[in-house]
Amino acid sequence: MIKKFWTMFLAVGMMCPLLRAEETAGPVENHPVKYVFLFIGDGMSLPQRMLCREYLRRLQRDDLRINRLPVNGMTTTRCSNRLITDSAAAGTAIACGGKTNYGVLGLDPAGKRLESVAEVAHRNGRKVGIVTSVSIDHATPAAFYAHNPSRGNYYDIGRDLIASGFEFFGGADFLQAKGKDGDLYDLAARGGYRVIRDKSAFVALKPGEAARTLVSCPFSYAIDGDDTNIALAEYTEKVIAMLDNPHGFFLMVEGGKIDWACHANDAATALREVFAFDAAVEVAYRFGQQHPDDTLIVVTGDHETGALTLGFAGTAYSSYPERLQRQRISYEKFSQQLKQLRQDGKLTWEAVKPLIEKNFGLKCDGSDDPLALTASEQERLRQALARSLAGKDKLQDRQAENRVLYGSYDPLCVTATHILANKAGLGWNSFSHTSLPVWTSAWGRQAGCFNGMNDNTDIGNRLKLLVTPLRP
Amino acid sequence: MIKKFWTMFLAVGMMCPLLRAEETAGPVENHPVKYVFLFIGDGMSLPQRMLCREYLRRLQRDDLRINRLPVNGMTTTRCSNRLITDSAAAGTAIACGGKTNYGVLGLDPAGKRLESVAEVAHRNGRKVGIVTSVSIDHATPAAFYAHNPSRGNYYDIGRDLIASGFEFFGGADFLQAKGKDGDLYDLAARGGYRVIRDKSAFVALKPGEAARTLVSCPFSYAIDGDDTNIALAEYTEKVIAMLDNPHGFFLMVEGGKIDWACHANDAATALREVFAFDAAVEVAYRFGQQHPDDTLIVVTGDHETGALTLGFAGTAYSSYPERLQRQRISYEKFSQQLKQLRQDGKLTWEAVKPLIEKNFGLKCDGSDDPLALTASEQERLRQALARSLAGKDKLQDRQAENRVLYGSYDPLCVTATHILANKAGLGWNSFSHTSLPVWTSAWGRQAGCFNGMNDNTDIGNRLKLLVTPLRP
Repeated sequence: MIKKFWTMFLAVGMMCPLLRAEETAGPVENHPVKYVFLFIGDGMSLPQRMLCREYLRRLQRDDLRINRLPVNGMTTTRCSNRLITDSAAAGTAIACGGKTNYGVLGLDPAGKRLESVAEVAHRNGRKVGIVTSVSIDHATPAAFYAHNPSRGNYYDIGRDLIASGFEFFGGADFLQAKGKDGDLYDLAARGGYRVIRDKSAFVALKPGEAARTLVSCPFSYAIDGDDTNIALAEYTEKVIAMLDNPHGFFLMVEGGKIDWACHANDAATALREVFAFDAAVEVAYRFGQQHPDDTLIVVTGDHETGALTLGFAGTAYSSYPERLQRQRISYEKFSQQLKQLRQDGKLTWEAVKPLIEKNFGLKCDGSDDPLALTASEQERLRQALARSLAGKDKLQDRQAENRVLYGSYDPLCVTATHILANKAGLGWNSFSHTSLPVWTSAWGRQAGCFNGMNDNTDIGNRLKLLVTPLRP
Repeated sequence: MIKKFWTMFLAVGMMCPLLRAEETAGPVENHPVKYVFLFIGDGMSLPQRMLCREYLRRLQRDDLRINRLPVNGMTTTRCSNRLITDSAAAGTAIACGGKTNYGVLGLDPAGKRLESVAEVAHRNGRKVGIVTSVSIDHATPAAFYAHNPSRGNYYDIGRDLIASGFEFFGGADFLQAKGKDGDLYDLAARGGYRVIRDKSAFVALKPGEAARTLVSCPFSYAIDGDDTNIALAEYTEKVIAMLDNPHGFFLMVEGGKIDWACHANDAATALREVFAFDAAVEVAYRFGQQHPDDTLIVVTGDHETGALTLGFAGTAYSSYPERLQRQRISYEKFSQQLKQLRQDGKLTWEAVKPLIEKNFGLKCDGSDDPLALTASEQERLRQALARSLAGKDKLQDRQAENRVLYGSYDPLCVTATHILANKAGLGWNSFSHTSLPVWTSAWGRQAGCFNGMNDNTDIGNRLKLLVTPLRP
């Protein structure tokens, strides 16, 4: 009967020139999907994705895979007690389908436990994988396995990770491995996890070798090109092979560093993090092409970070995102270079100028290079250097001003990334999150139910239904 | 047969808990809709609408009608030759379904004429109305009736308006009424238009009294509360009565001043303009409730203006949109007050301070009022006052700096609106447009085809189909 309706529905679709098939090709049956992928770009909303699209366009390259998925919607993000959410409350909404307070993981505002899509999937006999480019106990991945009133209780969150029994975890090291019951890595091993701490062991890992795996390795920014890192795409490829089984799986992959780069207002670094995230989605998409009736891919963000805008007062109607190519290293690595200079007593404008030229492509030579710094831009950098040298200001009013100008970042570094962004036609307006809805995309079986306007809790609730077997 | 499919489709819908009826209740038939309303918020995208939602929420009032329509999507806006579009190219995309260059109206990039949904509707025997809160020859309304390589050719655009023969035009005065063929108002009267130049004549106007009407009256900002203005809601009510006929109508209503307030980075004024726009949609929605099978309402924007963000470095994760209540007058009216003071030689900080306190609710008294100005905020205002007094700077570098700080606006005025916005937890980052996709919403017959992700040309092409009679 259901099949008949489906055929009918398709037939109606064919008759409608206005109707694009992918827009309604979705939830005709409330039927579980065997392979469910959820990709979360932390801090990734419309501006981050539109920036990538335009950057790639200028370079005459194809748009991101995530920007070419057929089903698209907006997702609202507010949490129970704030307009501007954080990754814990947003992660809980996406994972569990329930609103909670800022900073809370897997509990409702009254403290009642919420079940996540990963837990529902696992309870129903699926294998579960959780992967992130930040620490594995960070708020977004934790929302899928932990239940804690504070995202900062890292040790307890690590205990919840081990207790989950999920088949695969991958990410950067626990933020607090030591605690009252012993080292989390020891506890994981005792709990049946194969613990992997470097890339070569990861590469060597074969399906069937371990019932449960915990990969905990360093993870630096993609732009810094450290090939001892395991890329999100490499994780995705491996986890698919590890988890594939007749009962299906649920895999969550987080691009966690997109958020961090946006907090630091570093557009070039954020761009490369989105590319790395997109490469992971591409792996799932290729898998999906081989299992089109059994695969669902959902891509979303938890909130926007940085108040990024494609448009800036100084460039008005012009955009030059391709100028971001000129940046060579992340804000993090550049800040480390500045720190080293300070420690060596060598943090001077003359020492810093060549570093800025080399790492950001900005020119101090008064040339007609589009990235040549004006006199007032050089003055802004010199003032920022003075602030970097001065350390924390004692005047409360001045502190507030510094917070607006530099956030908690190195003043010189953030001024350099701001100037480069502005010259690319971009603006940053916060070092925190904003309430801009995020862009959700989907492909595959049941993808249609992520179309249009949804709340982040809708995403969680729909995913929970889609990993639940039909009731007889 | 079509009816049978429709019934089937509804039946399937009932069986699907994941499927929200409104998300697919749309384009099952490619059938024209009798009453087609298109509302365009100029410069209105997600941040503008989300700001209204949160502001109203804090005041415990219902959300906007436009934010409660059942079908929602994102709309991309780039024009043929730029990432960041203008109202002419965006208006042409929405009206005609074709991309064109920045500044061009109703022609493709090669200069070929594009037909607008209004023209298609009119050609097919419908009545057509075009209403705006800015001048009737401005880019957005002009995209529905004019064909000109430059949006600035106001006299020619006015000639196109008269030649269109559309049944109703309403908005502010022609920007260039005088020209080689005579006064546009005389030409309109000779072309069969009843020309109305004040509100009382508009109020007295009865359906059937005039085959064609041109209402051209002053239109100031809603926040300034001038009741000699005709509100967009009053226009909508009247035009529905004037245009209703057995062959149906197409009505476009533009909230044109949302854009202007956002260009000036005046959040409180923009908010009131969105409210006035929403009140017009409410009128159409009530009409639609009485004609649910025959009405389609589409609400969109042409682009985002101002790089508005709900989130700002200084307020981090907190938001206080309710503080915008404290602003009493528009940036325009406040700038006029400042201009008068300057002309009278009285533009001093002592004279300006009480005006800032009265009009923006900002306090210079060092109190613990949340809108009390810090010392550095007062300093910013004093510096802006100095710039207001100094006039245009001769140094090119300084000019660029002023453009980033103040755009083309009065420095003191824009600094006051920026500080109030920042204290509300909002940021502005441009005095121009951005490339953020806009939020499109719809209700009624065929609304479903505006769901998901679309380009602005899709809106135009779908509307053109929906005002075209079925081919036999």
